Amino acid sequence: MNQRFSKLIDWMKTEDIPFSFITSTENVFYLTGFRSDPHERLLGVAVFQEAEPFLVCPQMEAADAKNSGWTYEVVGYTDIEDPWEKIQARVKGRLKSIQRIAVEKQHVNIERYEELARRFPGAAFIGAEAKLEQLRLIKDQSELAKLKKAAEYADYAVKTGAEAIREGKSELEILAEIEFEMKKQGISEMSFSTMVLTGKNAASPHGVPGAAKVQKGDLVLLDLGVVYEGYCSDITRTVAFGEISDKQRNIYDTVLKAELAAVAAVKPGKKAKDIDQTARAIIAEAGYGEFFPHRLGHGLGISVHEYPGITETNELPLQSGMVFTIEPGIYVPGVAGVRIEDDVHVTDNGAEILTAFPKELLFV
Amino acid sequence: MNQRFSKLIDWMKTEDIPFSFITSTENVFYLTGFRSDPHERLLGVAVFQEAEPFLVCPQMEAADAKNSGWTYEVVGYTDIEDPWEKIQARVKGRLKSIQRIAVEKQHVNIERYEELARRFPGAAFIGAEAKLEQLRLIKDQSELAKLKKAAEYADYAVKTGAEAIREGKSELEILAEIEFEMKKQGISEMSFSTMVLTGKNAASPHGVPGAAKVQKGDLVLLDLGVVYEGYCSDITRTVAFGEISDKQRNIYDTVLKAELAAVAAVKPGKKAKDIDQTARAIIAEAGYGEFFPHRLGHGLGISVHEYPGITETNELPLQSGMVFTIEPGIYVPGVAGVRIEDDVHVTDNGAEILTAFPKELLFV
Repeated sequence: MNQRFSKLIDWMKTEDIPFSFITSTENVFYLTGFRSDPHERLLGVAVFQEAEPFLVCPQMEAADAKNSGWTYEVVGYTDIEDPWEKIQARVKGRLKSIQRIAVEKQHVNIERYEELARRFPGAAFIGAEAKLEQLRLIKDQSELAKLKKAAEYADYAVKTGAEAIREGKSELEILAEIEFEMKKQGISEMSFSTMVLTGKNAASPHGVPGAAKVQKGDLVLLDLGVVYEGYCSDITRTVAFGEISDKQRNIYDTVLKAELAAVAAVKPGKKAKDIDQTARAIIAEAGYGEFFPHRLGHGLGISVHEYPGITETNELPLQSGMVFTIEPGIYVPGVAGVRIEDDVHVTDNGAEILTAFPKELLFV
Repeated sequence: MNQRFSKLIDWMKTEDIPFSFITSTENVFYLTGFRSDPHERLLGVAVFQEAEPFLVCPQMEAADAKNSGWTYEVVGYTDIEDPWEKIQARVKGRLKSIQRIAVEKQHVNIERYEELARRFPGAAFIGAEAKLEQLRLIKDQSELAKLKKAAEYADYAVKTGAEAIREGKSELEILAEIEFEMKKQGISEMSFSTMVLTGKNAASPHGVPGAAKVQKGDLVLLDLGVVYEGYCSDITRTVAFGEISDKQRNIYDTVLKAELAAVAAVKPGKKAKDIDQTARAIIAEAGYGEFFPHRLGHGLGISVHEYPGITETNELPLQSGMVFTIEPGIYVPGVAGVRIEDDVHVTDNGAEILTAFPKELLFV
């Protein structure tokens, strides 16, 4: 039994939960090493305090599941079989009575909930998310290695984007060149929809990449990430095309100052909110407080947005092994939008920055 | 009140449902014209038999919602506000008592379900999916126009992919060229992960595009689609690179024969299963029955896979205005994988084929 399971089971013992049924792609991957998104079909790992766990997946993925390193039972089902029958039989074979079942309450839908409630009548349902978030919060060495590699690819993608910028080229064209190059590098999945926004579009919180063309004097915002062996990166850089105004420059310099200060503030024992406030204070002092409308950052790992939020109010103390983004931004409508984002790993000596693309303002 | 709402409300009256709360991106778009995926944040449209509906969305999307043509109330909420408070107040202002609430049981998670159950105690929850599927089943003229346009782009994407094939080029490189060209055309979203599979990879039901390179004698399978103004296309073509064996040719010809026969069999009043069986019989007769492991097709519209499934057992009679895919395939491990897929619109005169890329075997 791997450490991740053992820790989940420790919690189940403390909470008197005999049976957990974990069904999200991300948490099943975290626990079992098997990554699959079977869309509307059921995927799940059943965990017990003493008995052996089992994995449920569509029959056509059963071989992949076995090859992924999962050494316990794989329960496949075809489209004409009822996976719940199979689950119920196996659970009842392992446990006499079930008072409490842990599930991901943000992931299990009503239809599945009703199915579980029917098959295990009288059981109370306990949310499993908070525990799994906590387990995933501290990254181990193998996870860090993947996050670093994902960040390297993100650096390369930003470089590709910056080099692709030409007068009159559209946001979508630049975006296309980035993703084209990443696919050629063997990256089959970006961690979210790549954003390339130029000039006024970057200054709008609703900006989506489109036909807008880069013009002299634009600040161009590139926000992207890749998935590498199941782990995500997330980087933002803002570059200048041609000469920019003093106002634009001032906005850039303010964001950079805030970003550097926030990164420098990272240390085990500091609270998440301290890091947010470090950046927020610098931006407010420069007179842009109202133009920084979002949190400073978010946890990063198997999901591109995961626990914890680096917000103004989060009291969570930082610990070695956490990985999150630091991404202050200033968006002045009609003038410019600037965001600078790094992925950082908390170490005993402070932040280790995973993303390495330069942050001094680049003129392309 | 648009027709779509009226029909939903007719159903609510029949079923004695005073309040529906519809929360999936697709169904909110269908009902309101506002397309948004706020991820973990709440989006929803509240529908009543007599009172005015309202739309709930994150505050930062409220302006977009109003601009999308929605003329009723938009209830925005910030990240520090509780949307459920706002919903409860508005619903209670409209209705004295609520015995039954319609929701999408495959979409609402336990956390939201518990929230609704707490705020509307004693209410029973009725599944809304089946009704919404039924409404979305018959496409109107504006929907058909978008589906046709989406299919045209899919044709162009397949052409791009076929032209990109060269000896030694990898699946991911070809895929990248397709998506690059689509982005340059202004298409910002593919309707699913583009598949380019060559040779043996195409013959595996698990094939995912990777570093495998096209070699002389390969059949190359291209499966892709785009989203155009919220509507999806989905096309598959299989092309030959260099000379192929008689066995490969025989597989191709069998799939094509099955596809053409299935398309020709489409007619209002025929059952979905008749169309599936038309193709399946041809493939079985040619000795490949065991190598056609999936349904013939699926409904197509706002979702790339939607109701109905064109399966061996679906008794649903076809009606004018339905749009679905027809996509027989034969996958002989180690030999070849061939699939040919069109999007078809059922008319009084039979199938109108939306995808126009040629189906005679193309040698590239």
